[in-house]
Amino acid sequence: MHNANRQIVLNSRPMGVAGPQNFEATTTPIRKPEEGEVLVESIYLSIDPAMRTWINEDPGYVPAVRIGEVMRAGGIGRVLESHIDGILEGDYVQARLGWQSHPTLSKAGTHKLDLSLGSLEDWIGPLGTTGLTAWFGIRAVGDLSGTDRVLVSGAAGGVGQMAVQFAKLEGCLVIGVAGGSEKCEYLTYELGLDGAIDYRGEADISTAVSKVMPDGVDLYFDNVGGPALDAALVNLRPQGRIVLCGRISQTVAPERYGVRNLGLLIGKRGRMQGFIVSDYNEHYAEARQWISNKLKTGELKQRLHMLEGLEAAPEGLSMLFRSENTGKLVVKL
Amino acid sequence: MHNANRQIVLNSRPMGVAGPQNFEATTTPIRKPEEGEVLVESIYLSIDPAMRTWINEDPGYVPAVRIGEVMRAGGIGRVLESHIDGILEGDYVQARLGWQSHPTLSKAGTHKLDLSLGSLEDWIGPLGTTGLTAWFGIRAVGDLSGTDRVLVSGAAGGVGQMAVQFAKLEGCLVIGVAGGSEKCEYLTYELGLDGAIDYRGEADISTAVSKVMPDGVDLYFDNVGGPALDAALVNLRPQGRIVLCGRISQTVAPERYGVRNLGLLIGKRGRMQGFIVSDYNEHYAEARQWISNKLKTGELKQRLHMLEGLEAAPEGLSMLFRSENTGKLVVKL
Repeated sequence: MHNANRQIVLNSRPMGVAGPQNFEATTTPIRKPEEGEVLVESIYLSIDPAMRTWINEDPGYVPAVRIGEVMRAGGIGRVLESHIDGILEGDYVQARLGWQSHPTLSKAGTHKLDLSLGSLEDWIGPLGTTGLTAWFGIRAVGDLSGTDRVLVSGAAGGVGQMAVQFAKLEGCLVIGVAGGSEKCEYLTYELGLDGAIDYRGEADISTAVSKVMPDGVDLYFDNVGGPALDAALVNLRPQGRIVLCGRISQTVAPERYGVRNLGLLIGKRGRMQGFIVSDYNEHYAEARQWISNKLKTGELKQRLHMLEGLEAAPEGLSMLFRSENTGKLVVKL
Repeated sequence: MHNANRQIVLNSRPMGVAGPQNFEATTTPIRKPEEGEVLVESIYLSIDPAMRTWINEDPGYVPAVRIGEVMRAGGIGRVLESHIDGILEGDYVQARLGWQSHPTLSKAGTHKLDLSLGSLEDWIGPLGTTGLTAWFGIRAVGDLSGTDRVLVSGAAGGVGQMAVQFAKLEGCLVIGVAGGSEKCEYLTYELGLDGAIDYRGEADISTAVSKVMPDGVDLYFDNVGGPALDAALVNLRPQGRIVLCGRISQTVAPERYGVRNLGLLIGKRGRMQGFIVSDYNEHYAEARQWISNKLKTGELKQRLHMLEGLEAAPEGLSMLFRSENTGKLVVKL
């Protein structure tokens, strides 16, 4: 057992929602780290919407995970043996661990965690890619200002719960869109948003948005795509901005939704912009310092939706696309 | 006759393409200008895609033309009598003349033409709203740079023919999309573009674009909306920009086209932006100086598609939406 690296590999390309049927568990011997490598014991594995695109034939912006290959995943681990300068046994690192219990990792992409900024749980969420995605998306791409009326979809998810709080901390009026009353209660009562829209209970999201935001939307942070994007376009104010962060409603949709209201961007002088968080990596340190401060004062919170054990990972991926998580979805090993 | 102001008024709200059936000719006495007004003899009336939206129940960004009201239109006229300081009888002015032969106009919105910059024909096109729309759209909104691969739809129309030339003058590789071989020949042989795509002859615009622009599109200047916009999204390069100037394919479409490829903006870090030219009016003078210089050296050309007589105006509006004009469509009185 001590010499066993448990892994979960991709065994077929999914149609629609990916889940246990597309993966299988296997075990290989732990590979002893060479010079410039570390052996790590996985502690947290992040489950993110983007992972679903990585197992498509052609993800577009990154190489696909191959059939038979360990599923790609970011996470946090503890170093068991190090041959990298500056990383010691017992250190915690953030890396592309993959769905495996004992990865051997090279130097590139393996980052030692500074636990003075926050706990492991902070690092898997607010201080990690999830928090940074929300931070640079809403602030740098979205040009967040304190007077903005902000609408966020997928608001109770990992990135969403950070985006809404960054906007609230700036003083904005913030409304979240989420699926189900539990998530909406989380947004309103725990995170203190000005309101939440349960899209499952609304025949027409556009009307629902115009009811809670009668003056319109200055900034729409979109995690879902589809009809919510059309609704935001209808409610967008002049010079409004739309940040395209994700499109979880479309990733596994049988037929892609056609957005009909783009023409409104002309008269409204609206802007729509996509982004990838790694483009901002030169500014990660300052963002993390800000986020760390707000975590320490208690002004910034996160909810983790935690699954136990490596074997729960494939089911976790399917939960994400059935919108069954409230908060950041992670697997704890 | 000398006291008759011939007018064309809106008599019904059109469904689909607007044309003669939606307007009627009438005659009223010329109204003598009061203090702060001028009486003008219309010379050129501009026929623009935006006019079709002005006769909808709710155009969105401007008030609708009312039933029984003279059709709103920009144009150029000669001053017959002036009670405005700085404007003299015989001067030429640019204003919202409307579809009428002898409008009486107030000071606001009536601008004396500086004929040292160009002729009346230059002022109705390149130096007027048409040219300025292309100028600010492709340069200020589109961040045009000389290394860009530029795609322009509606490329042989009034704004399009200016946009493609501004990009060529900057040194860009420029491809135009237009309907019909005559327009494509105009773009390639007269304006010197690097290629033209006749969308009427293509089953799939996206494939056609990828054939002539195998390295992709840095900047797409969109005058049409619809499937061409989806095609541009597919072919967009990383950090590509899409300028939404118009959507003539959608203005009178029975059902609005749904754009399916917006998700590509995420991985490509793409930007899509709408604009209204009047937001840039503080910079009109410098733009006109640049355009004037290029007209005088012969580096910038325009083709006018000229219709004769006020009565031709309603038919002109329908020609625009049947894509029957090559160049800037105007009515000459």
